[in-house]
Amino acid sequence: MMAARVIAKKRDGEPLSAAEIGQFFGAYSRGEVAEYQMAAFLMAVCFRGMQPEELAALVEAILESGITVDLSSIPGKKVDKHSTGGVGDKVSLVLAPLVASLGVPVPMMSGRGLGHSGGTVDKLESIPGFRTDLTVAEYRSQLERIGCALISQTAEVAPLDRRLYALRDVTATVESIPLIASSIMSKKLAEGIDALLLDVKVGNGAFLPEPERAELLARTMIGIGRTHGKDVVALLTAMDRPLGFAIGNALEVAESIEVLRGGGPPDLRELTLVQAAEMLLLGGAAPDAERARAAAASALADGRAAACFQDIIEAQGGDPAVVDDPAILPVAPVELTLRAVADGWVGAMDVRAIGQASVALGAGRLTLDAAIDPAVGFHVTVKPGDRVEVGGLLALVHARNEAAGQQAAAQLDRAIPVVPAPPAPALPLLVSRLEG
Amino acid sequence: MMAARVIAKKRDGEPLSAAEIGQFFGAYSRGEVAEYQMAAFLMAVCFRGMQPEELAALVEAILESGITVDLSSIPGKKVDKHSTGGVGDKVSLVLAPLVASLGVPVPMMSGRGLGHSGGTVDKLESIPGFRTDLTVAEYRSQLERIGCALISQTAEVAPLDRRLYALRDVTATVESIPLIASSIMSKKLAEGIDALLLDVKVGNGAFLPEPERAELLARTMIGIGRTHGKDVVALLTAMDRPLGFAIGNALEVAESIEVLRGGGPPDLRELTLVQAAEMLLLGGAAPDAERARAAAASALADGRAAACFQDIIEAQGGDPAVVDDPAILPVAPVELTLRAVADGWVGAMDVRAIGQASVALGAGRLTLDAAIDPAVGFHVTVKPGDRVEVGGLLALVHARNEAAGQQAAAQLDRAIPVVPAPPAPALPLLVSRLEG
Repeated sequence: MMAARVIAKKRDGEPLSAAEIGQFFGAYSRGEVAEYQMAAFLMAVCFRGMQPEELAALVEAILESGITVDLSSIPGKKVDKHSTGGVGDKVSLVLAPLVASLGVPVPMMSGRGLGHSGGTVDKLESIPGFRTDLTVAEYRSQLERIGCALISQTAEVAPLDRRLYALRDVTATVESIPLIASSIMSKKLAEGIDALLLDVKVGNGAFLPEPERAELLARTMIGIGRTHGKDVVALLTAMDRPLGFAIGNALEVAESIEVLRGGGPPDLRELTLVQAAEMLLLGGAAPDAERARAAAASALADGRAAACFQDIIEAQGGDPAVVDDPAILPVAPVELTLRAVADGWVGAMDVRAIGQASVALGAGRLTLDAAIDPAVGFHVTVKPGDRVEVGGLLALVHARNEAAGQQAAAQLDRAIPVVPAPPAPALPLLVSRLEG
Repeated sequence: MMAARVIAKKRDGEPLSAAEIGQFFGAYSRGEVAEYQMAAFLMAVCFRGMQPEELAALVEAILESGITVDLSSIPGKKVDKHSTGGVGDKVSLVLAPLVASLGVPVPMMSGRGLGHSGGTVDKLESIPGFRTDLTVAEYRSQLERIGCALISQTAEVAPLDRRLYALRDVTATVESIPLIASSIMSKKLAEGIDALLLDVKVGNGAFLPEPERAELLARTMIGIGRTHGKDVVALLTAMDRPLGFAIGNALEVAESIEVLRGGGPPDLRELTLVQAAEMLLLGGAAPDAERARAAAASALADGRAAACFQDIIEAQGGDPAVVDDPAILPVAPVELTLRAVADGWVGAMDVRAIGQASVALGAGRLTLDAAIDPAVGFHVTVKPGDRVEVGGLLALVHARNEAAGQQAAAQLDRAIPVVPAPPAPALPLLVSRLEG
C-alpha cells in the first residue's frame, strides 16, 4: 500500500518527503518494493521530474546501498572529472595524469562504453596488460603513491544505482535528467572526491543533444554536489563533431599520448588545457586560471604528464613503453580511405551516426556484456566548415576485414557530407561554464 | 529491445500502430514482456493517453486472451448495463429483471465491490443460497430460459484484463481513462452483448468525480463500442449523494425489492425507470422513450419485474421467498441512529467518506480477497438541501457490534453536515446523455 501511494504522489506531481523517498528506495533495496513498482515510479519521474529534496534523498539512498571510499588520509583536495560521453572524447586519458603530475590527486572511477559513445575503461584496456579492476585498497594505495588511479567501478560502490540502471535500460526510463544526475553524482560522491569537474556534451553526438537539457543536467548535478559540500564546475562543450581525430579504443590511446607529449589535434589539446586549468583551480594548485593553464601547458611540454601516465600504466599492470612507442598498441589489419567526391565544404556531421558506425565496426557495444575489438575505429581528419577538394582525405577506416571496413566507410560517407556552400558555424568548443 | 522501443514511443507521445500494441500485449500474455515493462508502459499511458487505434488494438488483445460468449442462438438484441460504481447504487438489481420481464435478454456479468463502492455480485450473494459462479453453459441456458442471468466474471473471460488490473492496482496506474475504458468494454464485449447502457457516475462519490473526466470516459467507451458494432448509450448521473437510502449488501437488496414491488425511494425508482427505458429502446422492445418508460412502470406495478427476479433467484440457487419476505435476509444485531444536533439544512455530503465508512463497518473490502459482512450498512434517510430540525433523523447504522457502530456513526456525522443555510443545489439526477 505504501509503495502505491508513493507512486501515485509522483504521478500526480505532489512533492514527496525525504523520508518517503528514503523508505521507498530502502524497501526496493530490501526487495519489499517490486521491480514493477519501481518501473512505474521511474516512468512517473520521466514526466514529473524530482524536487531538489527528493533528489538529495535519492542520492543518499544510492550512497547508503554501498561503500563510500574515505580518501581523507591522502593530503590535498581530490578532484575528479566526469564527461557525459561523446564520440572521440579521450580527454580523461590525458587529463588525469596531467593534473596528477601537478600535485592534485585524481581518483577516477569510470564506466565502459555503451551505445554510440566510448568509455575510458575500454580505451585503457587496449594498452597491453592494463588492469582496471583494482580493489578499493589498491585504488587508495595507488592514489597515495602516484596521485592517480584509473579504475572501473567496483561492485561495492552504489550497487543500487547498478540495479536501477539495469531496470531503466529495459523500461525506457534512461533519459530522465534527475535519474541521470543522481546516477552520475552518487558514484562520484562514493569514490571519495572533494571537488568535481563535469564535461556536459551538447550537439547531435551527445547523450542529451539539446543545450537546454544539457544545461539542466549540469545544474542538477551541481545542486547535488552543493548538498554534499563538494565544489562542482560544469563545462558545456561541443559534441556536434568528434573530438580530436581518433575514434576507437587503441586509436584514442595513441592520440592521447600525442597530446601528453605536447602534440595532438588542436581541439583535443585545447579542451584538455581548459579542463586541466579548472581542475587545478578546484584542487587549489594554482592561484588563477591563467597560471593554471600555463602550468598545465608546461607539464605537457616537459614530459611530466607523460611520465605520470607511464607510472599509472606500470602500477596497473600495463606496458609503460606504450608512451614512447604507441606502435605496440593493437593495430587493425585493414585500412581504407574515405575521400571527397566533389569540391566543397565539410557540412554538419551526424556525430551519433559516426559513433554508431564505430560500434558496428567493433569499437563499442550495444549491450553491457558484449566484447569489443580494441584495434578498430576511424580517423576523421576533417571538421565541419573545412574546405575540401575532390579526392581530398575525409577519414581513415581501421577495420578487422575488408567487408566491415567498406560498410563502415559507407556509413561514414553519409554522416560526413561535403556540401557546395559553407555550412552554418559549428558550436564553439566551450559552449558555456556553470558553477555551484 | 522491442518492448523498450514501444514503451519509449508511448513515453514520447508518438502513436503506436495496432500491430505494435498487439505484439506488445501478446508478448506480455506469453511472459515475454516483463511485469516491470508493462508497469512502465501503463504509467506512460497515464500521462499520454491512447489514440483510438491503439485502444481498439488493446481491447482486441484483451478479448483474444479469453473466450467471447456467443449468444446468437438466443433471439432478440441482448442488452447489458454497466455502472462505474457509486455508493448505494443498486439499480442493476432492479433493472436486469425489469428489462428482462419486458422481453429484452439481459446478460449481466458483474464485479465485486472494491474500495469505497459496492458491487452487484456481493449484494446478490447476501440472498441466502444465491450463486453467482455459473459456468458459461449455465449462463447461456439460463438466458435462453428466463432472459436474464446475473453472474460474476468467469476466469475464461478477459484473463489479460484480470492480470493488467492486478498490476495497475499496485503501481498507481488505475486512474487512466483509456485503461478503465478498455477494461470495462472488453469484458462487456466478451459476455455476448448487442448493445450496452453505461451509467457513468459524477460527483465526489464517483470513481472519477470530475464531470469532464467522466464524460471523456463515457465517450471513450462509446467509441470502443462503435468499433465493435455495438450500440452504446451513456448516462452521466449524480453521485454527489448516495442513491436511494440503503448502503450495504442485504440492505440494498431489500431496497431493490421495494422498487421491484412498485415502491422504494423516489430517486432510485426514477433512475431505474430512466435506465430501463434506454435499455428497452436499445433492445428494440419499445417504439419510443415515452412508451418504453410506461412499459417499465407497468412491469413494476403489476409484479412482472418482481416475478422475473424470483425466477432468477430460484435459477441461481437462492431462496425466492426473499422477494415476498425480505426479513429472511441477514440482519445486523446493532442499530444506532444519527440525529441532527441543530436546526438547519443538510449540506453537501462527502459521499466517498460515507462509502469508506461502510467499508470500515464490514460492508465492503479494500483488497479483492477480503471477506465482507452482508448484514451491515447504513440507511442515509436525508438528501442534500433537506430541511432538518434538531433531533431529526439523518441516518441509521446497522452494525455487527456497538463499537463498530459508534465509529461508523462518528464518520457519518462528519460526512453529512447540517448547515445553517441552504447549500448550493446538488447535481440533477441525470446530468447528461451521450450516444455513439
